[in-house]
Amino acid sequence: MSQALDQLMKALSRLPGIGRRSAQRIAFALVRRPERLGALVETLTRVGESVRLCSKCGSVTTVDADPCRLCLDASRVADVLCVVEEPTDIVAIEQSGGFHGRYHALLGRISPMSGTGPDDVRLERLMTRVREEQIAEVILALGTDVEGDATASYVADALHALGVKVTRLALGLPADSGVGYSDPVTLGRALRGRIDA
Amino acid sequence: MSQALDQLMKALSRLPGIGRRSAQRIAFALVRRPERLGALVETLTRVGESVRLCSKCGSVTTVDADPCRLCLDASRVADVLCVVEEPTDIVAIEQSGGFHGRYHALLGRISPMSGTGPDDVRLERLMTRVREEQIAEVILALGTDVEGDATASYVADALHALGVKVTRLALGLPADSGVGYSDPVTLGRALRGRIDA
Repeated sequence: MSQALDQLMKALSRLPGIGRRSAQRIAFALVRRPERLGALVETLTRVGESVRLCSKCGSVTTVDADPCRLCLDASRVADVLCVVEEPTDIVAIEQSGGFHGRYHALLGRISPMSGTGPDDVRLERLMTRVREEQIAEVILALGTDVEGDATASYVADALHALGVKVTRLALGLPADSGVGYSDPVTLGRALRGRIDA
Repeated sequence: MSQALDQLMKALSRLPGIGRRSAQRIAFALVRRPERLGALVETLTRVGESVRLCSKCGSVTTVDADPCRLCLDASRVADVLCVVEEPTDIVAIEQSGGFHGRYHALLGRISPMSGTGPDDVRLERLMTRVREEQIAEVILALGTDVEGDATASYVADALHALGVKVTRLALGLPADSGVGYSDPVTLGRALRGRIDA
């Protein structure tokens, strides 16, 4: 049909959450609407030119703001670090309004199954920051699946050696959910972590 | 966070099948992997430069091949036209191997609810083709939802006025499916359209 279109479908299907069929639909939709394709190219180019990861915390920032706004914000608690996997997690936690310290994105997770070890995440950088910034508490806000748990326990062990307090997010029922809709693992964790009413 | 990134998330969420959260994940994934972002920009640009819709049948082709390969293929049956909504539908029908005539994509559907009428689809072009190419049969391969049905009956009426034979794809059970999994409408149509065993 068209080699370029084939390549576009392949490139799209490598993006998170896009399967082969979605990639095809998107590619054809862009061919149908050249003005959208043009606008997308323009926006992607601008992002490529202007958006970077903060060299300190790993969150998303712009080329002219490194360290990022969050790292430089003097009104934030300076000695509490929240460790996340990805920059998107920082956005989600900021939206919760429940955290006022600084962040550190690992930009990955420890997963022996996929061949990523401690050196593939920003753990050394975290250790250095904990020492240099005299961090009092590190909150691990990592995934609650097997790999998230493995990453959390590895990172916790490393941090304990520095004598810093390490905590994890509570495990339990999500908001707006019924007990009957919860999976057994979540329910078990919610029971074990039960709090005084 | 970054205006460019916000714009990218908005542009992505306007693509088919991509919601607000997927758009965020994709945008951040591209920021994480600048080489992928660069490759995507390059591929999109190439598609924008080289891929076009065939001026005759509306399927996808390249700038240097209009009318398209399918329109020019002398081995295909010349007097049977298959009418589809979108170029992607042509790909799906070609993969089925069940059709050997020519195509005509309406590039839309008639939907009073969304304010698209007969003039917003390539119906006039279809009428002209049926006359000029002395078409003997037009097969309507349109969606089986309300708007697809509405489009089919409008197009069928218009074509009947030209005295051409108009057919529709059979309605019934999909392949590899159980009766118990079928919705009532599909089952009802399959029963009404039952064939000799």
